[in-house]
Amino acid sequence: GVPEATPADLLARLGFLAEADRLKSVYRATTLVDGSRPENSGEHSWHLALYALVLGDQAGVGVNLARVIRMLLIHDLVEIDVGDVPIHSANGQAHASADTQAAEAAAAERLFGLLPGTQGAALRALWHEFEAAETPDAVFAKSLDRVQPVMANLMSGGGTWITYQVTAEQLESRVGAKVARGAPGIWHWVRAQTRVFFEVAP
Amino acid sequence: GVPEATPADLLARLGFLAEADRLKSVYRATTLVDGSRPENSGEHSWHLALYALVLGDQAGVGVNLARVIRMLLIHDLVEIDVGDVPIHSANGQAHASADTQAAEAAAAERLFGLLPGTQGAALRALWHEFEAAETPDAVFAKSLDRVQPVMANLMSGGGTWITYQVTAEQLESRVGAKVARGAPGIWHWVRAQTRVFFEVAP
Ligand SMILES: [Ca+2]
Repeated sequence: GVPEATPADLLARLGFLAEADRLKSVYRATTLVDGSRPENSGEHSWHLALYALVLGDQAGVGVNLARVIRMLLIHDLVEIDVGDVPIHSANGQAHASADTQAAEAAAAERLFGLLPGTQGAALRALWHEFEAAETPDAVFAKSLDRVQPVMANLMSGGGTWITYQVTAEQLESRVGAKVARGAPGIWHWVRAQTRVFFEVAP
Repeated sequence: GVPEATPADLLARLGFLAEADRLKSVYRATTLVDGSRPENSGEHSWHLALYALVLGDQAGVGVNLARVIRMLLIHDLVEIDVGDVPIHSANGQAHASADTQAAEAAAAERLFGLLPGTQGAALRALWHEFEAAETPDAVFAKSLDRVQPVMANLMSGGGTWITYQVTAEQLESRVGAKVARGAPGIWHWVRAQTRVFFEVAP
């Protein structure tokens, strides 16, 4: 039989999914691997979920991979209102600024508020958990969010490292530390590649 | 500690993820909800996974939602080699043709073959399961894959229904039947909207 859902519930959820479509029009500083154009945050979210699916064995003890994937699917929705704040922009200061965080929290209120109450609250809580980066699931999700642009930069000849004149040391502190925290086995290998790119000692 | 993975394993998996990036350059007949440009298959895959996350309670008994999401994340990767074959193109005949199916199976061999053996075999099997559309997970995944473009067409003023001169009856047979099979509660509501669009009796 037809599962129970009031028509209003379904209407609200389809409305949320239509609003989510706008994430495909939010462009990031990072390009596609082939350098042909900037990546948008919708396809970025897909790619990260695929990273989790393929690299899940690199997660630490106690990580729930299905939950990490759900987290990654919603982690950038707030950018529909706020836009993407590149990690290396404003000399690395804008990304985690209080202003950005407040704007993103307001966006989470609005967007997840489009959903029926219980479901909206659950997804908003999942987004806050990702942002806080304290639980094992969030730490692993963040590590993937940080390493995927590194791979794109490596393969496209430098990408945002060139745009924002990033040094090997800035990459270590802004990116490497977070990748290493959640996925040390991945960072071990990817870091070596970045050392070659930056022409610094391994 | 660092989880076990031979360097070659990690290299192969990162190579697969770089190759997967090309799905962001495969364009579909369907546009974004705002009609501004064609949708690509990478962002489409993200949107479908989000559909599953938000509409999971509409799935039938025995559906494993985490598995449906994994299925949707990989379901279109074969288009990297084959391109998207629109459901309404060639008067609805091209999509499920033997030629298309053979080309997609060969693409699955190549793409999942980039991964380490066990992992590649598991994801290739998951893709074949989606294509066969027989298990509850695959049936629900297919229903979402069919209904998301309907929503985009409804909101963008007709989209591929106009491009391919689709009738209400063709929509029912090519799309509606498959949505109704896996997600009757969703089709009940969305079908009513399509009847209004096509100006036919509810
Ligand atoms: Ca981001």
